[in-house]
Amino acid sequence: MTRPAPGPVVGLDLGGTKIAAALFGADGAVLARHSRPTPAQEGADAVLDALAAAAAEVDPGRRAAVLGIAAAGVIDPRSGMVTSATDSLRGWAGTALGAGLADRTGYAVACDNDVRATAGPELDALRAEGNEHASLLFAAIGTGVGGALASDGRMLHGASGIAGHLGHLPSPEAARLPCTCGATGHLEVIASGPGIAAHYARLTGAPVDRLETVAARAAEGDADAVTAITTGAAAAGHVLGGLANALGPDRVVVGGGVPRIGALYEDALRAAFAAELMGPLRGLVPRAPLFGHDAAVLGAAALTTTLPLHHPGALR
Amino acid sequence: MTRPAPGPVVGLDLGGTKIAAALFGADGAVLARHSRPTPAQEGADAVLDALAAAAAEVDPGRRAAVLGIAAAGVIDPRSGMVTSATDSLRGWAGTALGAGLADRTGYAVACDNDVRATAGPELDALRAEGNEHASLLFAAIGTGVGGALASDGRMLHGASGIAGHLGHLPSPEAARLPCTCGATGHLEVIASGPGIAAHYARLTGAPVDRLETVAARAAEGDADAVTAITTGAAAAGHVLGGLANALGPDRVVVGGGVPRIGALYEDALRAAFAAELMGPLRGLVPRAPLFGHDAAVLGAAALTTTLPLHHPGALR
Repeated sequence: MTRPAPGPVVGLDLGGTKIAAALFGADGAVLARHSRPTPAQEGADAVLDALAAAAAEVDPGRRAAVLGIAAAGVIDPRSGMVTSATDSLRGWAGTALGAGLADRTGYAVACDNDVRATAGPELDALRAEGNEHASLLFAAIGTGVGGALASDGRMLHGASGIAGHLGHLPSPEAARLPCTCGATGHLEVIASGPGIAAHYARLTGAPVDRLETVAARAAEGDADAVTAITTGAAAAGHVLGGLANALGPDRVVVGGGVPRIGALYEDALRAAFAAELMGPLRGLVPRAPLFGHDAAVLGAAALTTTLPLHHPGALR
Repeated sequence: MTRPAPGPVVGLDLGGTKIAAALFGADGAVLARHSRPTPAQEGADAVLDALAAAAAEVDPGRRAAVLGIAAAGVIDPRSGMVTSATDSLRGWAGTALGAGLADRTGYAVACDNDVRATAGPELDALRAEGNEHASLLFAAIGTGVGGALASDGRMLHGASGIAGHLGHLPSPEAARLPCTCGATGHLEVIASGPGIAAHYARLTGAPVDRLETVAARAAEGDADAVTAITTGAAAAGHVLGGLANALGPDRVVVGGGVPRIGALYEDALRAAFAAELMGPLRGLVPRAPLFGHDAAVLGAAALTTTLPLHHPGALR
């Protein structure tokens, strides 16, 4: 597993609807960008082909030797396999992502879960402030509730790459509600965007299609909308505060689309988080991510510096 | 920070009531043992003096060059400081444990929290089975609820050495109950030995002094005693299952005195744990610790091979 000298790197971000690609120079500058739809229902080979095509679009002259990919699903960076995945990508579970993409592109490939890849630059920034042993609790609250954990300066992967599934801890606010994973009472049920919308529907008896609708009604003074939003925020704050006690992070970052709905959400999350903290952690406050739009492709490219590389030919 | 050649090692275990000491040969054999009461209410200097005296008892001929100590309280192994501590050891918070003990004994000293030290040999055993990247979730359920986390082959310490405080996560079964840490609704309130006894007292209106009393009444068919025990066990199982989803452990170990009350507890814990698990973790079953009585002193001695060593003279 030889690691090429620093040079241009391809970063790919595979989501359920879109593939984003970028070529980064050795100095981190973006040299080219591309995006295309994910052929989500066409099977794993079609997705790997689309990823390879996206890489070719940003690096037609083959300036890079390595490629990093941030992918939806549970990814094991050591084996390069997709450990498990939801139906949003048909046939994705069990795919040899690292080797399959290396074979199609000729690059040496590093791969990881998209949330962990996105959190990588946040950890790098924290370490660059002078604490090489820094620990990070990173939550991504959107359509689901995911996350990434870093401790003592390193991103955690866990068995089969599963570390970071923060949405599947018990939440008192979610008691007895069925979770997408098959269990009951998990944080994701009450704190994700669809979870907040579903809670509003339970409170009012009137279904709503989107979190934004609930947020708009809360802004107009709808008490049930305010309750649904603050309950979701408080549930997230309580679980993240408890996880902070268990992990001892130096920084807590809360990203994803849900926290962007505004101060009502943020205040409830902060208050619930603070209420949980043990003495040595008091003063810790959840923050917004430092990196925006580019975080996933940037983090994907950075995977090539820390993770095992999968080389062409390993599948044969 | 030079690391001495392998040779005899002193291991110390500092608890709220007792200090245990052992001298281990390079082959791991116990060459000498000693124990003495902890002068818990006499201040940190008295405790350090007692620790030094215990070390001198097991190694009068100064065969060892290094000493490892497993201590109550939140310990930061890098700084060697006691980050925080409860009143069970008066004046213990803020003590320079590593440097103070090195100065008193002349040994190079490695120090850590007692639960983390106890979990070390469990991690070593797991790694010795062939997975050097193994992850471990270790819970210690007794007077309190503590634990230790290892991921990708390494024990996690977190900011200020706080990682592993598993008792201070939200537990639906503990909703609205005040925790020893000042927050409300934490696992420790309902799942620790005193927590189970207190729950029985709430159910019956009759205080009991000890968990063993509740366990005896459950064995006689007292329905409230059964409820108190199974509620505590289920609360622990649910939180540990959720933590397993977040961390992806290869093994889950549940130690401490509470699980020893028997099958009623163990069955409820296992069922609640299994109900939480995401797909890739199904089949994971909490186990009893591999190491018994000697685990803490053995783990303390082993700290000297992985943690920073604090040398005499650093305080001057």
